[in-house]
Amino acid sequence: MLKEFYAYLDKLLAYSRSIALLHFDMSTTAPKDSYPTIAKTISVLSGELFSLKVSDEMKKYLDYLEKEYSELDDIAKRTYEVCKKEYDMYTKIPKDEFVKQKEVAALGQSKWKEARDKEDFSIFAPVLEELIEYSKKFAGYLGFSESPYTWLIQQYDEDFSLTEVEEYFEVIKSQLVPVVEKVLKADKVITNVLDKEIDLSKNKEVANFIMEYLKYDLNKGLLSESTHPFSINMGCDDVRITTRYEKFIPSLYSVMHETGHALYEQNPMDSLRNTILSGGSSMSIHESQSRFLENYLGRSKSFINKLYPVIMEKFSEEFVGLTEESFYREVNSVNAGFIRVDADELTYSIHVLIRFEIEKLILSGKVKVNDLPKLWADKYEEYLGIRPTTLKEGVLQDVHWSSGMFGYFPSYSIGTAISAQLYKTISKEFDVQKAVDNDEVEKVLNWLKENIHQYGSLLKPKALVKQATGEEFNPKYYIEYLSKKYGELYGVEL
Amino acid sequence: MLKEFYAYLDKLLAYSRSIALLHFDMSTTAPKDSYPTIAKTISVLSGELFSLKVSDEMKKYLDYLEKEYSELDDIAKRTYEVCKKEYDMYTKIPKDEFVKQKEVAALGQSKWKEARDKEDFSIFAPVLEELIEYSKKFAGYLGFSESPYTWLIQQYDEDFSLTEVEEYFEVIKSQLVPVVEKVLKADKVITNVLDKEIDLSKNKEVANFIMEYLKYDLNKGLLSESTHPFSINMGCDDVRITTRYEKFIPSLYSVMHETGHALYEQNPMDSLRNTILSGGSSMSIHESQSRFLENYLGRSKSFINKLYPVIMEKFSEEFVGLTEESFYREVNSVNAGFIRVDADELTYSIHVLIRFEIEKLILSGKVKVNDLPKLWADKYEEYLGIRPTTLKEGVLQDVHWSSGMFGYFPSYSIGTAISAQLYKTISKEFDVQKAVDNDEVEKVLNWLKENIHQYGSLLKPKALVKQATGEEFNPKYYIEYLSKKYGELYGVEL
Repeated sequence: MLKEFYAYLDKLLAYSRSIALLHFDMSTTAPKDSYPTIAKTISVLSGELFSLKVSDEMKKYLDYLEKEYSELDDIAKRTYEVCKKEYDMYTKIPKDEFVKQKEVAALGQSKWKEARDKEDFSIFAPVLEELIEYSKKFAGYLGFSESPYTWLIQQYDEDFSLTEVEEYFEVIKSQLVPVVEKVLKADKVITNVLDKEIDLSKNKEVANFIMEYLKYDLNKGLLSESTHPFSINMGCDDVRITTRYEKFIPSLYSVMHETGHALYEQNPMDSLRNTILSGGSSMSIHESQSRFLENYLGRSKSFINKLYPVIMEKFSEEFVGLTEESFYREVNSVNAGFIRVDADELTYSIHVLIRFEIEKLILSGKVKVNDLPKLWADKYEEYLGIRPTTLKEGVLQDVHWSSGMFGYFPSYSIGTAISAQLYKTISKEFDVQKAVDNDEVEKVLNWLKENIHQYGSLLKPKALVKQATGEEFNPKYYIEYLSKKYGELYGVEL
Repeated sequence: MLKEFYAYLDKLLAYSRSIALLHFDMSTTAPKDSYPTIAKTISVLSGELFSLKVSDEMKKYLDYLEKEYSELDDIAKRTYEVCKKEYDMYTKIPKDEFVKQKEVAALGQSKWKEARDKEDFSIFAPVLEELIEYSKKFAGYLGFSESPYTWLIQQYDEDFSLTEVEEYFEVIKSQLVPVVEKVLKADKVITNVLDKEIDLSKNKEVANFIMEYLKYDLNKGLLSESTHPFSINMGCDDVRITTRYEKFIPSLYSVMHETGHALYEQNPMDSLRNTILSGGSSMSIHESQSRFLENYLGRSKSFINKLYPVIMEKFSEEFVGLTEESFYREVNSVNAGFIRVDADELTYSIHVLIRFEIEKLILSGKVKVNDLPKLWADKYEEYLGIRPTTLKEGVLQDVHWSSGMFGYFPSYSIGTAISAQLYKTISKEFDVQKAVDNDEVEKVLNWLKENIHQYGSLLKPKALVKQATGEEFNPKYYIEYLSKKYGELYGVEL
């Protein structure tokens, strides 16, 4: 019976992989008039997958596994839990609404892109409205009509309640916001030579260096281009990432970020490969891996020491006079900026805090869709003292809402905080920076593989953090890390 | 009921589009270790599609339509026929074997590519063997165990029997082969400046010119790269083509060829768009469109007059001294060459004849897989007086067999002959070359759209030819066209 169950899940995997490929293709390759057809195709396959998840056959397997639960091995137990959870969820949502939402969500991205290109919010607003309504409705079906946002957050992080996320952002607000304010006031002069208009096609070669350096297996992955960088997989032998070549530094740091996601998906233990547990445990754990590579490695002195010569080999004419030290300072320069994915390490979580507050307001119905551009600008003025004048710099910068992904944003900040805790733990075993200096970056990557990647989604996020670090998740390491690093860099007491 | 039937077919279309995208992705984009997973995914979805084609629900619709047949409109009638035919076929083939064949066929291409790259036939031979066995087995289930090749040919051209195809190739053998021999013996000196090693990346811009000139709508299509050029579609709003940049002329003429396929798929009449009748009538009709653009337009003096300046603008340094006249002569130079897709217009059908003869031998069991490299070389020696020394130049040059496509090749030649008949018909209405000279290529393209493209697969191939040209298919126009053109070019009596 267990064998048949796994064979049945193989079929489900074929559907989710096809759907993933359709999404990847639409974001990177497909011609523009094809979007409605692709969206339709995604919705049909999603509906078929939905049916497979709530079928009588699935019910039969779940009943059997429930009865045999105590006899099952860990993988079967967890597989049962994941399928049971989905079964319970999907049996409460009407299939036709689910399918329709998938079509709207798949098309949303093209509307978002068009609105962004034309700086016209009204192109995107109706879709956004519709997607918000679907989210509320689905949350209602699941018993969360009072707080749809609670349900949404748990779609990405099953372990976190809204209260816990609120507590987390209280820490950010009370402890990080003052630090950011102090640093932004510090009158440290940072050179700004990297942010200029140059031909970025050579960045592809630098990107190749980065991916290779970070042991991203390109026989099982690739780098493509899209409006918004992302990673996606069709199984652990096909894990793809994208970046965009708009600005020098962000185009490269997106590669590091997405490579972090890719390594997680490429490296589950053998017994999890090509199962439904092959992927990451939760989105915050996923972001802990991407943010680890992007920041704790990517913005460190030791890594810059490896990256700098590669960049100067390609861009000696463009960046005349750039030294390793000034390069290091520039990728760590703190700025009140508009764009989250381009943000420095220190202000990053402020960008997320803003989104968290806005999403809460949207989902509680306290804010109308048409008020979002202004609300967005107000929040940026409140927290960072700047006011976006374009939609591309403002409310239309992130792709998430266009595909109905409300409640994802907190994972970015919580994930970054988790990576600080991981970094602290690793540092008890060996000096990360020294490992990089000695060309032993594998030591770091292997630690992540051993302690995080290999488990796929076998362990739940909180249990995984506990097992890896020996203690519960605690954001204090994040605040400590930032205070120390930026206190030194900016010569201020934090 | 009809409405529900069409909604049901929409679901089938979602599957076939997803499968098409998986194939496109595997041939153009996917990382190499992903092939087994993609092949598995293709086979699962193919199995699901198979089930939908023979389901009780399908049976219910077919029974209803059969009863109501006389009341149906033309589209419903033809849709019924197509579905009924597939129903009758698939109910005779065991699903598990069908699914397994799809997986082997999907993986076949990567084995073919590897064998080709490593010049090692043994890498490909077992897969080829397996695919041949599947073809024979399936043909047997359909009552063709005595002549599997008959059944295979009809998978691509339902209207043609093996006997008719044999009669066609008798014409080629008795009338074209002597012409080729005469021309090859003619001692006309043709300059050969285009076939040299140059940087072909600029060809992408020339390709853009060609696609634009031929009105290929790139909002509903794109050009990508693959080992073997092909066209594929995910509906008529998403019709993609590929080429390869190995040799100057072939890389561009492949674009013309594939654009011909693309125009056919992009331009069905409104009532056929996004239905199962949206695509081409048969593979020989399809090839008549691709070969028309590639040859009757592409290798004509008038088109060369448009193409030549574009090429000289990009390649003035590489092709010093190339004149319009010598360019025209070179793209029409007749050579005994190894590669079918690079072949000139005159020898082309000899390449197809060779494949036809070999396929007949394979499917009748008279030749073993391991004897194919030698048989291939022997046939080239027999018909063209040359002997390939590598597999890439020989038996491994074409992708078709690697995905189980036996019986496709004849379409190339028959399609080319059909395009001669179409050309003859158009010429009664207006002068094609003059239209191009006067920058009215739309006149030609519109004729094809009006008479061929718009019908999708509403009409069967023979009926379509009859309607478009006023008479039955007749290869004499092909022989006449070639004799006239090459007689003049080479100054020989043909």
